[in-house]
Amino acid sequence: MTRRSLATAVLAAAATAGTGAHAGPPPPARGKERIALLVYPGFTALDLFGPHNMLSGLLPEKLDLVARTPEPVTTDTGVKILPSATFADIAPGLDVLFVPGGTKGTLAAMQDDATRAFVARHGETARYVTSVCTGSLILGAAGLLRGYRATSHWVTREILPEFGAEPVEARVVVDRNRVTGAGVSAGLDLGLTLVGLLRDPGYAQRVQLVAEYDPHPPFDAGTPAKAPADVTADMRAMFAPFAAEARKVAQALK
Amino acid sequence: MTRRSLATAVLAAAATAGTGAHAGPPPPARGKERIALLVYPGFTALDLFGPHNMLSGLLPEKLDLVARTPEPVTTDTGVKILPSATFADIAPGLDVLFVPGGTKGTLAAMQDDATRAFVARHGETARYVTSVCTGSLILGAAGLLRGYRATSHWVTREILPEFGAEPVEARVVVDRNRVTGAGVSAGLDLGLTLVGLLRDPGYAQRVQLVAEYDPHPPFDAGTPAKAPADVTADMRAMFAPFAAEARKVAQALK
Repeated sequence: MTRRSLATAVLAAAATAGTGAHAGPPPPARGKERIALLVYPGFTALDLFGPHNMLSGLLPEKLDLVARTPEPVTTDTGVKILPSATFADIAPGLDVLFVPGGTKGTLAAMQDDATRAFVARHGETARYVTSVCTGSLILGAAGLLRGYRATSHWVTREILPEFGAEPVEARVVVDRNRVTGAGVSAGLDLGLTLVGLLRDPGYAQRVQLVAEYDPHPPFDAGTPAKAPADVTADMRAMFAPFAAEARKVAQALK
Repeated sequence: MTRRSLATAVLAAAATAGTGAHAGPPPPARGKERIALLVYPGFTALDLFGPHNMLSGLLPEKLDLVARTPEPVTTDTGVKILPSATFADIAPGLDVLFVPGGTKGTLAAMQDDATRAFVARHGETARYVTSVCTGSLILGAAGLLRGYRATSHWVTREILPEFGAEPVEARVVVDRNRVTGAGVSAGLDLGLTLVGLLRDPGYAQRVQLVAEYDPHPPFDAGTPAKAPADVTADMRAMFAPFAAEARKVAQALK
């Protein structure tokens, strides 16, 4: 992603749109953060675009979608997204390394040497090492969760001990510089948490207001404990084969 | 998007992953819905990927990202996304027509004849005509909100009367077959609302549990009323030029 495209990010675009450069306050100062969000075949788009939205509010110096190769990456629902960088383009010392989750594609990424090496290498030098959903399994596979408290999608949370991590049932878990989120939609909470850590609560509140992040889910079935028993039983059964396969992959990587 | 890529959507992928086709229950039945989500230069990715995630849970027959041309579409933060269809590919009688918002790009889309004509044409025959954020300005520009109650991002909600709509301060507004959401992150609530309307509450609860949609924002500044006064004043001032420009565009289209 270029400086130019970042300069058109939501906040600045709005501040400078249309009625002349002198109407309204000056656009906010550009940030100095360098951020890399991993994309890989089969990742879940919302895992990524929740954090991406909040982190874009920093107007960071770099906010890359980084993939192993420059070709379009296809998500688990068939959306094709172009990476802005490949592994070789990313310099060490990131402010944020982020890894989204998925299902089959995540298991493949865990077993891909180049992907694991990239995540391990940048995990050593990044200021914050972060994930949403089953992305924490990739952090674990790269050896980055040993001795850390962490979370994951409820389907895979109990697999984290295979990587030496202590599983925590929470929306977002911050343990030193490891920041992990629960399933899929937890990326919005994780992204806003990161904005607060990288800047300050006042800045995070501004980003929250721009995203109008005042959630009102029309149903209250967002966790296995809150959902009706039959809903939870159905989804547990549906994901049991995936959870078993994920555990097998984790054990084989030890 | 092909049948094949849909068959690998989250639910089905998880149900059939790894440990053999006979482990666990059969994957859920594929839906019959045909859904088109508009993408245009400068749209906001999270506006789209909230609804997209929830609607993907229907495993619909078609879930297209539709653009005027087949080239990659660049979001307001520089992400390049490949459309799966162009305007000519979409047959009438959609189950859901969805329009995301943005800032400058949304004003350009409102003024683009081909985009307005596409939205107006499918708005006449779609089962649900929907938007998130400033996407409702595009619905309005296409003449689809005349006489309807609707919402938008808080920055632009009071512009809706320019299109003959009655603005409502709510997360999601359902008026007959018009379903509009508030700013950016309201797409998750809108998407889940649509899943409930297209299927039933039990199905929507299953989709909510898979997305682990149990939001816990780390701050409580998601609306102008909830945010600290200085935060709201800052953001109102920052977006005032954009709101003024959006109103001018709306008036010029009358």
